[in-house]
Amino acid sequence: MQAAILAVGSELLGTDRLDTNSLRITESLHRFGVPVRRKAVVGDDIDELATEITHALARCSLVIVTGGIGPTSDDLTREAVAQALGRKLERQQWIVEDIRAKFARFGREMPDVNRKQADVIEGAEVLPNRRGTAPGQRVDAPAGSIFLLPGVPHELEGLVTGALEPWLADARGRSAVGMRWLKVACVPESSLEQLIAPFFEEFGSEGLSILSRPGEILLQLSDGASSEQGLAEREERLGSILGDAIYGRRREDSLERTVGELLRVSGTTVVTAESCTGGLIAERLTRVPGSSDYFLGAAVTYSNRLKTALLGIDEALLEAHGAVSREVVTAMARGARGRLGGDWAIAVSGVAGPEGGSEDKPVGTVDLAVASPSDEVRYLRARFPGGRGRIREQASQWALDMLRRWLAGAERPDASHLAPRNLVVRQAAR
Amino acid sequence: MQAAILAVGSELLGTDRLDTNSLRITESLHRFGVPVRRKAVVGDDIDELATEITHALARCSLVIVTGGIGPTSDDLTREAVAQALGRKLERQQWIVEDIRAKFARFGREMPDVNRKQADVIEGAEVLPNRRGTAPGQRVDAPAGSIFLLPGVPHELEGLVTGALEPWLADARGRSAVGMRWLKVACVPESSLEQLIAPFFEEFGSEGLSILSRPGEILLQLSDGASSEQGLAEREERLGSILGDAIYGRRREDSLERTVGELLRVSGTTVVTAESCTGGLIAERLTRVPGSSDYFLGAAVTYSNRLKTALLGIDEALLEAHGAVSREVVTAMARGARGRLGGDWAIAVSGVAGPEGGSEDKPVGTVDLAVASPSDEVRYLRARFPGGRGRIREQASQWALDMLRRWLAGAERPDASHLAPRNLVVRQAAR
Repeated sequence: MQAAILAVGSELLGTDRLDTNSLRITESLHRFGVPVRRKAVVGDDIDELATEITHALARCSLVIVTGGIGPTSDDLTREAVAQALGRKLERQQWIVEDIRAKFARFGREMPDVNRKQADVIEGAEVLPNRRGTAPGQRVDAPAGSIFLLPGVPHELEGLVTGALEPWLADARGRSAVGMRWLKVACVPESSLEQLIAPFFEEFGSEGLSILSRPGEILLQLSDGASSEQGLAEREERLGSILGDAIYGRRREDSLERTVGELLRVSGTTVVTAESCTGGLIAERLTRVPGSSDYFLGAAVTYSNRLKTALLGIDEALLEAHGAVSREVVTAMARGARGRLGGDWAIAVSGVAGPEGGSEDKPVGTVDLAVASPSDEVRYLRARFPGGRGRIREQASQWALDMLRRWLAGAERPDASHLAPRNLVVRQAAR
Repeated sequence: MQAAILAVGSELLGTDRLDTNSLRITESLHRFGVPVRRKAVVGDDIDELATEITHALARCSLVIVTGGIGPTSDDLTREAVAQALGRKLERQQWIVEDIRAKFARFGREMPDVNRKQADVIEGAEVLPNRRGTAPGQRVDAPAGSIFLLPGVPHELEGLVTGALEPWLADARGRSAVGMRWLKVACVPESSLEQLIAPFFEEFGSEGLSILSRPGEILLQLSDGASSEQGLAEREERLGSILGDAIYGRRREDSLERTVGELLRVSGTTVVTAESCTGGLIAERLTRVPGSSDYFLGAAVTYSNRLKTALLGIDEALLEAHGAVSREVVTAMARGARGRLGGDWAIAVSGVAGPEGGSEDKPVGTVDLAVASPSDEVRYLRARFPGGRGRIREQASQWALDMLRRWLAGAERPDASHLAPRNLVVRQAAR
């Protein structure tokens, strides 16, 4: 079985919006070992739509259409599928009543236009939509099966789990494959690829997808062909290679969330002192609901004067070493602990660019320090590639990871030992 | 002329990545009045690719293919287009030499695999690629023209402006239509639609696209059919409706950038005092290169103790009114000016949720204050919809917009007068 996904809507053919529903659908298909062979987007045009459905059905025995099942005259998916299959549409009164009841629950009368949402393709199974008015439909034709699903992501989600996945389980005669996620911090992608080369030799690359952004890599393991045991084996192998560079094993994990959990468990608090990151680390920590339990606050000391006023940094120290130096960032971390009163403190000072670089400290040079409850300090200097935004993002990631490692009992402040191409400038640390 | 866009690459059929190149290509097509009729994504499979090209060419006289022109065995676009058109591929030695020279410039020898990038479809025009090794190609067939462009966005950009757009200008016998952008802050989308209803009556909706995210709307005007004068007329009409809710007219404008420009022009500086936004406003202000000229720093006072320690907020005031109150946020703004030493100060305190709401101050309640160089304060209370992230995003947007309006000489602190469904709770202001 191979699948084609078709997204319907003229708004998806402009310059602003992409079809993201197909990602969600693909995930479910992969969980049942069904590959996606093609994806397409067409506008609200019945002939175009019908042609595309015929084209897709000629190549794939499963066609999933999202969108175009609303109540307006632009919503033509039902009509187009019927046309492509040479079948009739039948208005089913029980669905009209069902939609009417949904409106009534909000104290509204059903507009007449919504009646067309009760039109069912001859022979189709109606798929209940608890989150919206239009039900989905599944039609089995000689060439394959077609799903008509809503375009609204929230409604789509309900039908994917409530109708598509049970059907896939049945059609494939199996349950969904497990998936495993490994979230890795602060290992550059090129280093990761080197590191996991032995894994590829042993297990091949199928069923492992690698998604990276600056300072963060998501490894997603799935296994359409093999067993839960095979999956566990592969996960363990990756775990043994990447060790404590893995900060999370849930898809929704983020570094700020893991740090928050570790702080909560340890019953300690954190503050930040930020220069080039401009508040980004504080902002990330406070994205997490309940972060007020362990995050107290931050001093964003963009100007040197504020480094002195808010963190008590000696002017002479700033003069002697410059704001981007081991001495100043260490003093910032200690100053933040003292002045803001956290158990832990993160401090960052660097050159985010595009101006301000020097031969000694080119754009991308960032000094990072973490101070512990016993006022010990770990320090790193990194040289991050990319523009201003990427440098700041990586700096926040490295800083949070230094704290995570310390909280988790790691002896090393970062993952350099794993990463031959790491960005940490070891020789700068004394 | 109608266009089809085809993105090639098995990695675009997974759960992680979307084809974003088509947005860039669509923009150029729209500038020459060419609508996109369909988009598709197929994997690295020669038959699938050839079938899709035939299918697209049957429906559209312009087919643009991105990706699959690299040097590996997976790169099959050249072969597939040749197959679809029944033409031969010819290896052109001058291109081999050109690629070899590109490698030599980096002190490298050309790998043998790169030779296939010199394969040209019979009758095709070679489109130079200054940013990569593989040239693009354009083939004119009886049914229409096919462009083969690179999948790497940076290389694609070069070929879109260097080859596709000049060809479109020639084929359409006209120059690119102008585009106008209006960036609007803090008018909810539903209000905006009501406001510009007269515009739609007068000019229709074609050529106006509206892209909204919380607290921000981008209006994009284009006009494939009409003149520069018509475009200017429509821009002016929107300008007269939206007035000073428009904060920028360049596509790359952001509220933090506009605020930065106004601060720079006025020769003043700003600081922030943030509670529920957790540093987001400071982080946004410092995204802008050169922001150290006018941004001094921030006190992220998540805990009440830090509101007192860093901003000098009276404990009794906190006790009497609570952290989310006109009194406290006003004191935060004044305290930030005094303690951090900025000319202007932005202060925010609110309930971002999911916990912490009360009947009086439900989740989404945010108090905003801006203090001026003469220590005057403007205050607003808003009630933002959505979850934690959206509330914080909107709070940062409203706060920056309050400062922008004051700097720009607006009498009103916000756009409530334009927005019948605005989120600002007027009655809370005294």
